[in-house]
Amino acid sequence: MFRGILKNVETKKPLVHCITNYVTVNDCANIVLACGGSPIMADELAEIEEITSISDSLVINIGTLNDRLIETMIMAGRTANLLGRPVILDPVGAGASMLRTETVFRLLDEVSFSVIRGNISEIKTIYGGSGGTKGVDAAADDRITDENIEAIVQLAKKLSERTGAVIAMTGAMDVVANHNRASVIRNGHEMMSRITGSGCMLSSVIGAYCGANEQAIFESTVAAVGALGVSGERAFEKTKSAEGGTSTFRMYLIDCMSKMNNLMLSEGINIESK
Amino acid sequence: MFRGILKNVETKKPLVHCITNYVTVNDCANIVLACGGSPIMADELAEIEEITSISDSLVINIGTLNDRLIETMIMAGRTANLLGRPVILDPVGAGASMLRTETVFRLLDEVSFSVIRGNISEIKTIYGGSGGTKGVDAAADDRITDENIEAIVQLAKKLSERTGAVIAMTGAMDVVANHNRASVIRNGHEMMSRITGSGCMLSSVIGAYCGANEQAIFESTVAAVGALGVSGERAFEKTKSAEGGTSTFRMYLIDCMSKMNNLMLSEGINIESK
Amino acid sequence: MFRGILKNVETKKPLVHCITNYVTVNDCANIVLACGGSPIMADELAEIEEITSISDSLVINIGTLNDRLIETMIMAGRTANLLGRPVILDPVGAGASMLRTETVFRLLDEVSFSVIRGNISEIKTIYGGSGGTKGVDAAADDRITDENIEAIVQLAKKLSERTGAVIAMTGAMDVVANHNRASVIRNGHEMMSRITGSGCMLSSVIGAYCGANEQAIFESTVAAVGALGVSGERAFEKTKSAEGGTSTFRMYLIDCMSKMNNLMLSEGINIESK
Repeated sequence: MFRGILKNVETKKPLVHCITNYVTVNDCANIVLACGGSPIMADELAEIEEITSISDSLVINIGTLNDRLIETMIMAGRTANLLGRPVILDPVGAGASMLRTETVFRLLDEVSFSVIRGNISEIKTIYGGSGGTKGVDAAADDRITDENIEAIVQLAKKLSERTGAVIAMTGAMDVVANHNRASVIRNGHEMMSRITGSGCMLSSVIGAYCGANEQAIFESTVAAVGALGVSGERAFEKTKSAEGGTSTFRMYLIDCMSKMNNLMLSEGINIESK
Repeated sequence: MFRGILKNVETKKPLVHCITNYVTVNDCANIVLACGGSPIMADELAEIEEITSISDSLVINIGTLNDRLIETMIMAGRTANLLGRPVILDPVGAGASMLRTETVFRLLDEVSFSVIRGNISEIKTIYGGSGGTKGVDAAADDRITDENIEAIVQLAKKLSERTGAVIAMTGAMDVVANHNRASVIRNGHEMMSRITGSGCMLSSVIGAYCGANEQAIFESTVAAVGALGVSGERAFEKTKSAEGGTSTFRMYLIDCMSKMNNLMLSEGINIESK
Repeated sequence: MFRGILKNVETKKPLVHCITNYVTVNDCANIVLACGGSPIMADELAEIEEITSISDSLVINIGTLNDRLIETMIMAGRTANLLGRPVILDPVGAGASMLRTETVFRLLDEVSFSVIRGNISEIKTIYGGSGGTKGVDAAADDRITDENIEAIVQLAKKLSERTGAVIAMTGAMDVVANHNRASVIRNGHEMMSRITGSGCMLSSVIGAYCGANEQAIFESTVAAVGALGVSGERAFEKTKSAEGGTSTFRMYLIDCMSKMNNLMLSEGINIESK
């Protein structure tokens, strides 16, 4: 099912341009390499058109936002749009401050995104300003559960219709949706929320997969979400065997992504169409 | 002894706002998560009041200082003061440059700190401009030893009286003091000085513990210093068994913090009142 | 062969001032500590002369360049030159954008470098503007092989003659050259290219080794290249035994550097004079 997508990543070794936060940037670079891509982090306006132009995809992550970065993000996004390259948005902390919320809406106005990946609070904020937030984590009462999954899927589909982007909403369950189809993915492990950067890393992997499969954005996003989820489960098992804690888990998570293949992903993914 | 403090961290899952350096920021975020808090790193003036306002505590770390950050730190500090939230200062490299030393004094003028955590050179610089420094590490002749411990404790108490902050001075031995009491803690391992970020991580843990226990700043600081010290000892034992080096040690240090509990801390801490 | 160089690092514990990118800065700080130095990362113009002045060497890495940093790099470089301290240049991504390429040439005009360490694409760009690039990685057709090694060595010697710097060109094989001698080093492992920061870390280790051996820049550079290469081989063996992936490898790489000694290096290095 994912053979072609993973094969294209391996063959193309996509160059993924990340304009991202300084908290998890190292993890993002390492997981892009682990999953078969090549990362380039660059955020200076003076070089941004050139860097975006040589890249196969662009990931915009607003985790540590400032004025200088906003202009760079818009210029990079427009450049990628002109060249038809996939652009991924990670709206970290949308809802936590006016600056973040407004920047997300400005980005959505000025750049056409292929994928928007966020937690449920961030996605709800984009959908209707109604999301709760606990800083950069989802609010405790914002959860994807079996009870609200149908409503969540509808929300994601509508947001996809409005933005033209595939929506990836991640949490205890993950939803990937475009305007007329959705997949619910039940993988991953709770420990992913006890390390920083799980979400940022996923957005980077989506960038790599889409960068090598620009005609299959929905499928690539599903594959990336599944691959990180399966890696999370495997990493948890290894961590448990090693009697390790959260930092051991972080290492194994990236390790597992560096060994991911079609068999592991296809057998490991727990996916349902909606 | 520490049951209540750790319980409050677990229950409240405090949101810790860190304005910190880009060298160890990832370690700081991970150890806040490991110890039961939720980190948010944000340093843009335009959002700083909002972010500080939703947070339970603020950690200001001057490890990679620049003009833009100084204004943000002051605004965040004042906001936290107005709201009565604990503010922790990590004066990284105070004494190594005029900019750092002057910024620390400016911060002390404009912000009321709950805790100041530094190595002995940094604390001496704040106390009287007399500290040596080797960049961001303590000068070799600035050591806390059994011989000078009484003098060090007095210095810490006086600095606490002058600043109103609990003083945490860390090194081979650690001293936590307010104006009329002090604890000497003998935990940790020398290997903590062979990785970057031990001090920054400790300041972040103090931020998390104080954020959940704002009525018990002294006790929370002692608990945090003890918890990282006990983690350091355990991490060293695990590293030795694994025949690992400094990077393995770093991983185990965060691992141990992610598993810390009242029993481990109470049995492991080597503490003496002064 | 390397006894004196390593001994000096151990004795002097050189303070290494790094003006570097925010992607791999934590790895750079940790490997400087691992190899026996003490890192200080500082990039604010207002303190740069002071910080450079107290440091034993300076490493300039253009991995995430911006206007603010360029001025700081030049000021730091001039200060180090005046004081006779070794200055190392890591021209990350030279050739990938005009900004990077021009900044490298400006730095070469205004600062005298002791060592320039880059991949073959970056070094070729400096040599004649003819290097390919894949972002911050060497272009696939830019390789050091047994077929082109003689030409590469000549290029490195000429570039050394022109710049006055020892040239360290790293890849599947590594070349260290000054104007009249060169060493080819065949160590390391392919997995080093599957983590971010191998090159940046090497430049930082060169900074530490040269900072403690300023009269032996060529030998120190060879020792650093060899030490990281030997660490890479050992790290790969440990990773294989542990059935680990790229993140495990990264940890073991730094671990091995933290245990490096003259015996390991002298027995492990595969070196040939050219």
